[in-house]
Amino acid sequence: MVASVAPDLSDPDYRSAVVDLLGAIGYGEISAFERLTEDAGMAPSLEDKVALLGLASVQYAKLEPIRVRLEVICEDPYAAMEPFRRPIDDFHRYTAPGDWYESLVKAYVGDNLVRDFYREFARHLDAETRTLIESTLGDDRSGFVVDRVRAGIAEDPRLAGRLALWGRRIMGEALAQTQHVAAHRDALSDLVAGETSIAGLDLAVIAEMFARITQRHIERMAALGLAH
Amino acid sequence: MVASVAPDLSDPDYRSAVVDLLGAIGYGEISAFERLTEDAGMAPSLEDKVALLGLASVQYAKLEPIRVRLEVICEDPYAAMEPFRRPIDDFHRYTAPGDWYESLVKAYVGDNLVRDFYREFARHLDAETRTLIESTLGDDRSGFVVDRVRAGIAEDPRLAGRLALWGRRIMGEALAQTQHVAAHRDALSDLVAGETSIAGLDLAVIAEMFARITQRHIERMAALGLAH
Repeated sequence: MVASVAPDLSDPDYRSAVVDLLGAIGYGEISAFERLTEDAGMAPSLEDKVALLGLASVQYAKLEPIRVRLEVICEDPYAAMEPFRRPIDDFHRYTAPGDWYESLVKAYVGDNLVRDFYREFARHLDAETRTLIESTLGDDRSGFVVDRVRAGIAEDPRLAGRLALWGRRIMGEALAQTQHVAAHRDALSDLVAGETSIAGLDLAVIAEMFARITQRHIERMAALGLAH
Repeated sequence: MVASVAPDLSDPDYRSAVVDLLGAIGYGEISAFERLTEDAGMAPSLEDKVALLGLASVQYAKLEPIRVRLEVICEDPYAAMEPFRRPIDDFHRYTAPGDWYESLVKAYVGDNLVRDFYREFARHLDAETRTLIESTLGDDRSGFVVDRVRAGIAEDPRLAGRLALWGRRIMGEALAQTQHVAAHRDALSDLVAGETSIAGLDLAVIAEMFARITQRHIERMAALGLAH
């Protein structure tokens, strides 16, 4: 559904919602960079390690345009990210992988959840912000995870049950922290509750958005050979 | 000094020296990526953290062409890197920064030492390997360290003495691990001892090379406001 009235950064409510959104995306990328690199320490081989470091490194490339844009529309990009440190760090603390397979599933599920979320949300934003966010989506580089996880399950079928639970936990924590943030940031809260000047983004539309994101999560878990 | 006889990858001794050299460079980049990201955890601000993550992320970009080249001239790029894990991990273990300033000095001194070393060495290699190594040098992105360290010393002059010792320790460990590797890898050992088919790369030339690298290290320490 396309907004019938284009959202406009001259509207201060919309503007602070966009600053919040870009701040959350920016800190999310910094944090993903650090956690993926830490998780790469559990890789069983140098080749696997480099594959995960590749995912980490992509986060930095995505961060730069967000940071530059934040500098234009607010004064301090790092101040814009600050409110999201706690919830995003909490997400990572509650989903710290216990082994290499949990790292892989988290990287795959997390990276794709974030990409789906951006893609869905971006459609309702002003053209410039939308283009910026879509440009950070880039190529999906997490595909190598599917082979690795399926091979692991083939070798030890008990892995499937544990990783299925793990995928559910990551999805649950991601939703919990998103709701926590929405409840504490007025501008984002209005955005997520549909109470903004963004035509076409009401509560029903947002519910459908989350339904689609959940559906794709389920499909990805199936691709990994896991029950959702 | 330029080699009067061009070194040639069809010479098996030269070829294995190049595989060793690229393997060492490749693992060095993986390891620097991981350590810089870990050290970024000590950053006093998000802005400082992102600056160090930027240095880390550059390592991944440098790794890719090395990996691709290793795939062409030997079969398994990761097997080529394996012999250098231990000495490079040892280097990092013996130079684990105790605080943010030690991280900064290590990033700056280490990054530039490695770049100087590559630049010096590359001149004596075959054209293709030389171009490859020079292309990974890229831009020097560690310049932000100078301002940060000088500001830290202005605030607390006692920092200068501690960081001067620290810089010396990093240089010392880097030389120790280089010598350790040279002593254990025949192909590299021949290369570093000048006993190769590379004309113009004899022991005297190598001694001058290390003298120049040391001189530039001293200049960099001075730029940081530190005695060498």
